[in-house]
Amino acid sequence: MQGGDGVVIGLGGGGEEEQVVNPWEVSAKDGGKIDYDKLIEKFGCQRLDDSLIRRVERLTSRTAHVFLRRGVFFAHRDFNEILDVYEKGEKFYLYTGRGPSSEALHLGHLIPFMFTKYLQDAFKVPLVIQLTDDEKCMWKNLSVEESQRLARENAKDIIACGFDVTRTFIFSDFDYVGGAFYKNMVKVAKCVTFNKVVGIFGFTPEDHIGKISFPPVQAVPSFPSSFPHLFAGKDNLRCLIPCAIDQLVLGFIIKAVSTFVQLERFWNINLPLKDPYFRMTRDVAPRLGYQKPALIESSFFPALQGENGKMSASDPNSAIYVTDTAKDIKTKINKYAFSGGQDSIENHRKYGANLEVDIPIKYLGFFLEDDDELEHIRKEYGSGQMLTGEVKKRLIEVLTELVERHRKARAAVTDEMVDAFMAVRPLPYMFA
Amino acid sequence: MQGGDGVVIGLGGGGEEEQVVNPWEVSAKDGGKIDYDKLIEKFGCQRLDDSLIRRVERLTSRTAHVFLRRGVFFAHRDFNEILDVYEKGEKFYLYTGRGPSSEALHLGHLIPFMFTKYLQDAFKVPLVIQLTDDEKCMWKNLSVEESQRLARENAKDIIACGFDVTRTFIFSDFDYVGGAFYKNMVKVAKCVTFNKVVGIFGFTPEDHIGKISFPPVQAVPSFPSSFPHLFAGKDNLRCLIPCAIDQLVLGFIIKAVSTFVQLERFWNINLPLKDPYFRMTRDVAPRLGYQKPALIESSFFPALQGENGKMSASDPNSAIYVTDTAKDIKTKINKYAFSGGQDSIENHRKYGANLEVDIPIKYLGFFLEDDDELEHIRKEYGSGQMLTGEVKKRLIEVLTELVERHRKARAAVTDEMVDAFMAVRPLPYMFA
Repeated sequence: MQGGDGVVIGLGGGGEEEQVVNPWEVSAKDGGKIDYDKLIEKFGCQRLDDSLIRRVERLTSRTAHVFLRRGVFFAHRDFNEILDVYEKGEKFYLYTGRGPSSEALHLGHLIPFMFTKYLQDAFKVPLVIQLTDDEKCMWKNLSVEESQRLARENAKDIIACGFDVTRTFIFSDFDYVGGAFYKNMVKVAKCVTFNKVVGIFGFTPEDHIGKISFPPVQAVPSFPSSFPHLFAGKDNLRCLIPCAIDQLVLGFIIKAVSTFVQLERFWNINLPLKDPYFRMTRDVAPRLGYQKPALIESSFFPALQGENGKMSASDPNSAIYVTDTAKDIKTKINKYAFSGGQDSIENHRKYGANLEVDIPIKYLGFFLEDDDELEHIRKEYGSGQMLTGEVKKRLIEVLTELVERHRKARAAVTDEMVDAFMAVRPLPYMFA
Repeated sequence: MQGGDGVVIGLGGGGEEEQVVNPWEVSAKDGGKIDYDKLIEKFGCQRLDDSLIRRVERLTSRTAHVFLRRGVFFAHRDFNEILDVYEKGEKFYLYTGRGPSSEALHLGHLIPFMFTKYLQDAFKVPLVIQLTDDEKCMWKNLSVEESQRLARENAKDIIACGFDVTRTFIFSDFDYVGGAFYKNMVKVAKCVTFNKVVGIFGFTPEDHIGKISFPPVQAVPSFPSSFPHLFAGKDNLRCLIPCAIDQLVLGFIIKAVSTFVQLERFWNINLPLKDPYFRMTRDVAPRLGYQKPALIESSFFPALQGENGKMSASDPNSAIYVTDTAKDIKTKINKYAFSGGQDSIENHRKYGANLEVDIPIKYLGFFLEDDDELEHIRKEYGSGQMLTGEVKKRLIEVLTELVERHRKARAAVTDEMVDAFMAVRPLPYMFA
């Protein structure tokens, strides 16, 4: 792995423009966009290219998810091996999760869950969802009780995404750590020195030992033997982890910049899963005789203020929350969504909108399912035919509907349903 | 706490003789004996004096255990507070344990358990016994399965000491870590920095994070809330830990000398419990709103070769094992037990034996229950009336009987009994 205070990647031949990715800046000069291809190359994962997407469609007999078609999930590690296995008639399982540090999720938080639901439905595979209440108790200095309360609240939002209870096990670390899970934690811990976690996570000797102890907790859901009630006798079952590329980027930077908590506080992206943990896991797995987990990685979900902005809990106007009212959404989009439109109608008609920096277009790219309509809007807006107000109006409709649908689904989630998803139980039909 | 490579304590006024206690030497010059009073003073615990022993006898309406009467357990931290509580009609619980790294226990291993059984019987209190199979898996690099097998084998030896199943919960960390226990681990971990554990345990950045994660595992059985099936609603129940003073001494030295594993390997005393962990625990407890555990601490059990010797698994002749045959015991005592007798009968009759260094006398002090007989032997032997051979003969009788009794008791321990002691269950009669 490489060190340095940030990852500076030259764009273009002359290297005049630079792309800076560090915890204080994630931007290209002059408002240019992040070159994810360069990041992929730099960080040694693989491009999720068209042929792989076609293969997914063929194997699942359905159109690829919007997030695949539009390149939201655009990189991977060994996802092709997962497909090889699946093609032979074997199965795999999915692992995702969330650190429950706040009550209200924003749209960025939903993305991995929406995508994971698609994967579960398309491949008909089991899924484990880890709620790292222990982590948030330690990093955010929440009480055990508050962390557990937030874990259950967040579980309701997750369940509202539509997961199949016959194939899904949601667990809180405070409830589930122990037994086979703890044995795997000890096995992983034996393979990782303090120096190593300093290198990966940037811990310092002044960090408490809870943080230093945590990486194995995040690692072991990648191993089927951590879930004997689900996967007994299936020690070679492969695991696929949907994850965000920004975490991968962060992973490389992070070792130079103290602890995760500070990063999370700064970015306020509430990292749902952490690629550095999984690189550590992939490093350790063969030494334990375990399969490496495969990863499928998404790009960064931008703040309303644009790719240079940060979604911040201290600035509710930086993101759309699933608890926002229709009025909130309308106001936020109209007032804060960074526009690539020109400063006058005249110029707009003349030059068209700059789609590369336009947040309404980016958000529609995530959430407007109709490819034809999106293409139409991009064309009309890019050529100056369509005005920012019209695009924002459509986005407001799409997000209002999405948030309203989520709100209704969440309201229908009872405590009994949470208990059902979180019960330690066999899932006899999980591969059916 | 103090640093330094060893603890050097002047004996006598002139400081000419020195007592050296470090991992490589535990000796006074010229074969003199360890001055435990000085150690007590140096390490800030309290002397377990006669008035406290009388108080124990009064409160329990029985003669104090040999190990109390003879000063084997001779120091404490807050044991008087435990007695205050008990005198008011409240109860407490006992916590002891063992790191299961070997199959065969020697007599030194039995001492804390023999004493703990006495405390349980005398005070009629519950007891938790922790088998740190996770620790041994990490420190001795045993497999998870082998550590757990040894834990069960050791549990049989522990049960053979006569514990009351209605008041005793034995647990393996690999089985029991989780839930309330894990929540307390996280709470403790949040209070302890890496620098702190380096100071206490001598960890280095090259140590794996399993070791760094372990201190909270050893700490939390001191808190009743770690055992909700036993102590729900009794968060203020006091905990008393029988422990060995040599560990306390080690605790101060250890931070200068790398890791525990090396010490254990060197001393081969297979530390049953570790005072440094409990000093850490006592430091952390008030910050969590918990009661500090009290400690009652024993002196070092010497090797057959004398107080300068080391009981070593690589030298089976350095200790009496509970698996030794009558013939083994006879041979070992006669051949290896360091004698304070003179080199000729003539000189012996003239000068008498040096009881301060004589191992048969020391061992009889631990295991011969009859005070009058012990006093008689000391007098006759010390004056030269009695010869080493006679003393050794009596010791052989005593130890053969002890080991034979243990062997029979252990043979009677079935797997079902182990399961019964280790079942996570309420103990409704534990205070009766």
